[in-house]
Amino acid sequence: MRRNQFSKVSRGSILVGAALAGVLGTAAGAPAQALKDVQTSDTPLILKAQGSFFVGGDKVEQTRTEVGDLAPGGHIAVNQMYVRYMVPQGGDGNVPVVMVHGATLTGKSWETTPDGRMGWDEYFVRKGHSVYVPDQVGRGRSGFNQAVFNNVRAGSTPPASQPVWLRFSDESVWPNFRFGLTPGQPFSDSQFPVTAVDELAKQAVPDVSFGGLPTPNPTLKALSDLAGQLNGAVLMGHSQSGVFPLESALLNPAAAKGLVLVEPGSCPARYTPEQIATLAKVPILVVFGDHRDTPTGLPTLPTWQARFEACQALIGRIKDAGGQAEMLNPPDRGIRGNSHMIMQDKNNLQIADSILQWIDERVSKRSGANK
Amino acid sequence: MRRNQFSKVSRGSILVGAALAGVLGTAAGAPAQALKDVQTSDTPLILKAQGSFFVGGDKVEQTRTEVGDLAPGGHIAVNQMYVRYMVPQGGDGNVPVVMVHGATLTGKSWETTPDGRMGWDEYFVRKGHSVYVPDQVGRGRSGFNQAVFNNVRAGSTPPASQPVWLRFSDESVWPNFRFGLTPGQPFSDSQFPVTAVDELAKQAVPDVSFGGLPTPNPTLKALSDLAGQLNGAVLMGHSQSGVFPLESALLNPAAAKGLVLVEPGSCPARYTPEQIATLAKVPILVVFGDHRDTPTGLPTLPTWQARFEACQALIGRIKDAGGQAEMLNPPDRGIRGNSHMIMQDKNNLQIADSILQWIDERVSKRSGANK
Repeated sequence: MRRNQFSKVSRGSILVGAALAGVLGTAAGAPAQALKDVQTSDTPLILKAQGSFFVGGDKVEQTRTEVGDLAPGGHIAVNQMYVRYMVPQGGDGNVPVVMVHGATLTGKSWETTPDGRMGWDEYFVRKGHSVYVPDQVGRGRSGFNQAVFNNVRAGSTPPASQPVWLRFSDESVWPNFRFGLTPGQPFSDSQFPVTAVDELAKQAVPDVSFGGLPTPNPTLKALSDLAGQLNGAVLMGHSQSGVFPLESALLNPAAAKGLVLVEPGSCPARYTPEQIATLAKVPILVVFGDHRDTPTGLPTLPTWQARFEACQALIGRIKDAGGQAEMLNPPDRGIRGNSHMIMQDKNNLQIADSILQWIDERVSKRSGANK
Repeated sequence: MRRNQFSKVSRGSILVGAALAGVLGTAAGAPAQALKDVQTSDTPLILKAQGSFFVGGDKVEQTRTEVGDLAPGGHIAVNQMYVRYMVPQGGDGNVPVVMVHGATLTGKSWETTPDGRMGWDEYFVRKGHSVYVPDQVGRGRSGFNQAVFNNVRAGSTPPASQPVWLRFSDESVWPNFRFGLTPGQPFSDSQFPVTAVDELAKQAVPDVSFGGLPTPNPTLKALSDLAGQLNGAVLMGHSQSGVFPLESALLNPAAAKGLVLVEPGSCPARYTPEQIATLAKVPILVVFGDHRDTPTGLPTLPTWQARFEACQALIGRIKDAGGQAEMLNPPDRGIRGNSHMIMQDKNNLQIADSILQWIDERVSKRSGANK
């Protein structure tokens, strides 16, 4: 039954929760306190390689004021994308997976969970896939272009010319990430490790991408270039970056072996028939959690149920064009309580197994890879 | 001879370059272009564990404007320190090593070199030590407190109240990091992989620590807390953070098993006799590169030779108090051309071997650990 689940998921009739329960992560009962709660696996992780590198980047010339007035002005790098990677021993021939984080977050999203369990980065490696985890341009180890901030500080540019830095407060995160309606009151079936929610709060960094990046966002080309350098990859995005795999595939369709949109912030209706025809050549999986009708407290943004429905509509357009686009909706399988941070939920490895199975069936067998 | 080199290094008479030449990294001849130049080891990396977590952090309440005006204000986390770690299989009992980066950089400093060779993070793991690589508070995946920037943007705070973001241009980096006097003209014996210098430029991120962090810098307590959580660690700092191991040891001397100051920006003369007596209980190694008399183009800052001499003076005070503080000065051993980014130099593993040998002799044997 599990073998063919993805061909039937749109009918919403298959309950595989029980079959997958064996891979459920163990919920931590106590609040996470950094290192002491980090769990260690029973078996070692054997890597052929690990490390980091950059994709893209531009060299620009800036004034002494723009570089901070301690040292002379000159040329600096901007718009580069940092990528950390792990390559498993014995995984040759398996399709690599690129995991991109969402708004106000970094690649940390995919690493050790807030309560100290294994993240999807290591789990996918243990399942034989090379994993590449970027920080979006403008965030984390990718850095950002600081010139306008230093110009504003020096009085040479008006304050309003400086872009906003976005953060989400706990009061926003609880309903918007669908842990519960208000902080400290989780849904009774919540899969998020809410006892460790303060560790999630530490993962947040200021996000300059709402007006502080070039157009188009350099991360899009960096992702398609990375997929090309890898000779093809599965591109996985989350939330803000949920749409990035689609955009990167349109830039370089041949390198996009599969697209996984995890709780995407949008599934655009604007794509032309030509663009839909391109996307129809790439296997696409959309993944959502539960409690999508929660009032988010963000009236200017669509609800998660509205985003889910927009993705269903996009899936429909792609299928009508002959493509293989599918929805992974855990409640259809009897799996309840998943949050927006589904890669960190207590059943994160159960969800990962479903995605890995989809990669196996829809991407690897299609491209002739071993796995 | 190698066994006792550190007991004689202050006499500057031992040439171990030839003996260590076998571990020299291979210089890459071509410019690094991201992924394609990343080298893979012949043997797999076997990890007992890897992942990431945070140390420290404060929860503060901010206004809607301060969190970016998209979502309601409320509580966010600030001042946390991100830490990525790798634990080798079979390394139980060996002292962990914490590697902290310098100004305008992140933990990336210790990872894959700009020309694609193995970084010190993986090399120390392969030598049996758990390695913990933080991003300083205010940088990279640790994030920063964005409130004042959003307040300035909104007009509620004067522009001058916003801290400066520091970057170093290529024109500053070449003399200050001692690759050569001017960009594109390396010293004839330079150990830095200058063909890949543009990849180093991509490692740089804006640095808010010149006025934009609480006092004292939260990274200091986070490092001493991390050392405590590890039941003792070697603390290694570089450049800006070269002094951090000293400061963290003063906060929690019992957890500081050894201090390695790599090209420290300062070796303070201000320490009291009581503080010197505390530091005299901890093995300390200071590491500098070559070409220290290079004019840096930064007249407000001491030359690297002046910093070297300040460290010699501090070593003298600690030794006079009965401590074991030592200088690793490669030119004394006939090793020429090392730069400020010595952990990325072409002979980075040769330098690492000297540090590992010092840890073996001065830290591990002292504490009764296996290695």
